[in-house]
Amino acid sequence: MRFVRFERAGRIALGLADVDERGRLRRVLDLAAARARWGGPEVPADMVAWIALGEQAVAAAREWWQRAQAAGDDAALPGGEGADGREPAARPLWHPAEAVRLLAPIARPPKDVMAIGLNYRDHVFEISGRDIPRYPVVFSKAASSIAGPGDPIYTHPGVTEAVDYEGELAVVIGRRGRAIPPERAREHVFGYMVLNDVTARDLQRRTSQWHLGKSLDTFCPTGPYLVHRDAVGWPVELDVRTWVNGELRQEANTRQLIFDIPALIATLSAGITLEPGDIIATGTPGGVGMGFDPPRLLRPGDVVEIEITSLGRLRNPVVDRLPA
Amino acid sequence: MRFVRFERAGRIALGLADVDERGRLRRVLDLAAARARWGGPEVPADMVAWIALGEQAVAAAREWWQRAQAAGDDAALPGGEGADGREPAARPLWHPAEAVRLLAPIARPPKDVMAIGLNYRDHVFEISGRDIPRYPVVFSKAASSIAGPGDPIYTHPGVTEAVDYEGELAVVIGRRGRAIPPERAREHVFGYMVLNDVTARDLQRRTSQWHLGKSLDTFCPTGPYLVHRDAVGWPVELDVRTWVNGELRQEANTRQLIFDIPALIATLSAGITLEPGDIIATGTPGGVGMGFDPPRLLRPGDVVEIEITSLGRLRNPVVDRLPA
Repeated sequence: MRFVRFERAGRIALGLADVDERGRLRRVLDLAAARARWGGPEVPADMVAWIALGEQAVAAAREWWQRAQAAGDDAALPGGEGADGREPAARPLWHPAEAVRLLAPIARPPKDVMAIGLNYRDHVFEISGRDIPRYPVVFSKAASSIAGPGDPIYTHPGVTEAVDYEGELAVVIGRRGRAIPPERAREHVFGYMVLNDVTARDLQRRTSQWHLGKSLDTFCPTGPYLVHRDAVGWPVELDVRTWVNGELRQEANTRQLIFDIPALIATLSAGITLEPGDIIATGTPGGVGMGFDPPRLLRPGDVVEIEITSLGRLRNPVVDRLPA
Repeated sequence: MRFVRFERAGRIALGLADVDERGRLRRVLDLAAARARWGGPEVPADMVAWIALGEQAVAAAREWWQRAQAAGDDAALPGGEGADGREPAARPLWHPAEAVRLLAPIARPPKDVMAIGLNYRDHVFEISGRDIPRYPVVFSKAASSIAGPGDPIYTHPGVTEAVDYEGELAVVIGRRGRAIPPERAREHVFGYMVLNDVTARDLQRRTSQWHLGKSLDTFCPTGPYLVHRDAVGWPVELDVRTWVNGELRQEANTRQLIFDIPALIATLSAGITLEPGDIIATGTPGGVGMGFDPPRLLRPGDVVEIEITSLGRLRNPVVDRLPA
């Protein structure tokens, strides 16, 4: 299941994405409409609240998805009849891709995005020539930096002159916990997203701490889908690829992570309570702009695309002016 | 005005603290009860939502405070008559100190606590012998690490062996903004709190990034009061003192900050939208446990107290077992 948060006609709601064989959106199942038709847990407009409902919400979504598939596209027509012959809900079950705008699956996590630095060997070498870290390097990206698919990455003229991309796999926590051993990590995962750990290299290097350079507004694009863990294998071995203006810049597989997902969850949760909706950015492979000589940083007009197997493609334009 | 969040008989609510000449709590004005009596904006149980109401909320609180002072302690008695002769509200206006438990004024800020490292000269020298930073060193403490007055600081046995205190002035943002120039910083401040930037020194130094060692559960005690900016001068020049088991360890004045509050707000907001309820921890002066030779770190049974002029005293015991 590919959970989405979407806007349609000024309303924000949660849904499930129906995609084609290349992962592109075909249509969205409106979860609140499905619930109105078939009953089940109330559906909030906020993904964190939805995740916090736990397994009952996942089970309901799975059942709605199956019923809605059977109901077919006719159910997308307001006034069309529901599959079970009951009166149709006022809201259509399905929205065609053209009718919706996908938003960041998680608008605001309970805490800042927990991000891991230097977690692929080739990136360690390109960035620093440093030794392979012995422990996960943990920093954070301000929760306010989150953006959605299609949203602009703002270059912040006058604040930074060195905006760079970092394609990454993000893990979203489903179940609250502390001191989670690696072998129980999967139970605490809700799902996965594509994430761009956009970085102002000059701010990142201005002091010893990376937080500021990682946290500017729009610097954390995520999505388009929040894919439930059941749709992804375990261990998580997915291809990550990043393009800038169509040119492949990063290509790796998450099996190459120095600290894998169970290790990261164990390290973070040793002392920090992980909560539903928390986001862990697992680190970026080699091929960031700063790794080239001369550096190939982002400029207004560029388009960054990141694709991860089965998680879809996150596409964001780079701009030096934000829409008012 | 000293805003508080408090628990009484299982209910959490917002209030204003009435304190004695030493800053100790005498009684709490229940803002929701005041509103029930005199009208005005609805009072949420969440401080961030309250702050987000803006100046109208502050003005209402000020008016309620004046009326309640005039009403006197009689109004604390359920069934007592209101000052204006109307029927009394069902809830008492005033709660005596013994009847309430003060909580962290802000339970959960919109993003992690933005914290500043190395912002007093004597602390720079004791910690590192490093040069005075040329730019504010910004890191974050997980929003989930927040604790309240009286709450235990948990030593996390098995996770860290080096828990240290850092007494600090915290600034709470009132008005949303980006690119706030220093001369407009004060308009964006809601108020101030005492904050303990508790730190696991071993985790802090295990990698280049401090986030993990700063973010363990209970590592960010705050309070007891969130004091409105109008009760504090500008520039902010307050004495900060920290005691461990009654022994004075830190003593400084916030005028000694290397980067002052306007500079910090300008630096952070240059690229990050500051939001109502955001917390900025301005840095700690010399005298942390790690600065002693040998280090004087915290141990179970210790009590840390931090007092800042007009902001009250934050007292937290150190424990190696959390209550179930």
